[in-house]
Amino acid sequence: MTDNKAPDSSRRSERSRRAIYDAALALVTEVGYARTTIEGIAARAGVGKQTIYRWWPSKAAVLLEAFLDLADQAADGNYDFPNTGDLEADLKAVLRATVDEMNDPVYDGPTRALAAEGVIDAALGAQFVEKLLDPPIQLYVGRLRAAETAGGLRAGIDLRTAVELFIGPLTHRWLLRTLPLTHEYADSVVEYALNGLSPRG
Amino acid sequence: MTDNKAPDSSRRSERSRRAIYDAALALVTEVGYARTTIEGIAARAGVGKQTIYRWWPSKAAVLLEAFLDLADQAADGNYDFPNTGDLEADLKAVLRATVDEMNDPVYDGPTRALAAEGVIDAALGAQFVEKLLDPPIQLYVGRLRAAETAGGLRAGIDLRTAVELFIGPLTHRWLLRTLPLTHEYADSVVEYALNGLSPRG
Repeated sequence: MTDNKAPDSSRRSERSRRAIYDAALALVTEVGYARTTIEGIAARAGVGKQTIYRWWPSKAAVLLEAFLDLADQAADGNYDFPNTGDLEADLKAVLRATVDEMNDPVYDGPTRALAAEGVIDAALGAQFVEKLLDPPIQLYVGRLRAAETAGGLRAGIDLRTAVELFIGPLTHRWLLRTLPLTHEYADSVVEYALNGLSPRG
Repeated sequence: MTDNKAPDSSRRSERSRRAIYDAALALVTEVGYARTTIEGIAARAGVGKQTIYRWWPSKAAVLLEAFLDLADQAADGNYDFPNTGDLEADLKAVLRATVDEMNDPVYDGPTRALAAEGVIDAALGAQFVEKLLDPPIQLYVGRLRAAETAGGLRAGIDLRTAVELFIGPLTHRWLLRTLPLTHEYADSVVEYALNGLSPRG
């Protein structure tokens, strides 16, 4: 990413950039991360290889940006974790939206291919975690911290670990396809994690 | 698996069978599930291809048995979920053992390769879930049901979903390598899932 020049602002380069992202994500979905090549992306996007190399130094760099762009589109300009004062409602809203994303082929296809490659390739996996997974995890941590300050969490909870009680079950069901991913499931995960499985009171 | 003949009892075939399992798992770890072939397994095990075809009809069949054998070895003859009457202690014991397995290259290498392929290949993933993942999940469900009967669970908990609060976080951290997988982490997951994140009382 050392040579990652900003695109010029003409409509034509924006169109090429969009075509390159789309081609990269489609190809990753179809043939997997490892077998996606700059040549393949260029051919599918209808641009010359040199157009890609002018903007990105490597296949990894163009794919990372395509994935960041996909995440941006999924976020739809909304990068704040909701804070209505009702932690349970906020977590359910976010996890339901995550379920919808995981069930959307536009997101599922390329993200699944990237995750599978990251499971095998530790270096790629680390980049995936750092650039794509940690930022949303930190939003969860921030929301839990606000709840903690407001007295809505038990004392002594490790917030980073607590986040995994929400995203771990959803990711497990998404990646391993054990059972259907539904809003009801997301709601149950939130309720169980917040209130625990043992009798209360 | 329609032609899955039992091995004859001679020491020689048992040795071949063991060599074939070992070769299959080593090869999957090194080149991935998709690129592992019967020819490759035979060459590495030092047996003829026909020896493998005599016992298994396909690569998928020999690999499935190799993974079942690996799971058997990890279980070390112990297929019961512990029930000391202390649900928290029992869950911690099982999740700590799972952490140890996930951190053991003998288990991690091939299982990670299989999981990655299952993430991409839905049919293989379904077999992986049915044969290797569901049986241990049912052991968790049984232990939670015993706790429910003893009054140790909140009313109305869906036990299958509850299991994912334990195995989801561990699998997330294992597959995505976000942070170290430790006994302390396993203990926290059990405590948080059982007691919840919200204040009790």
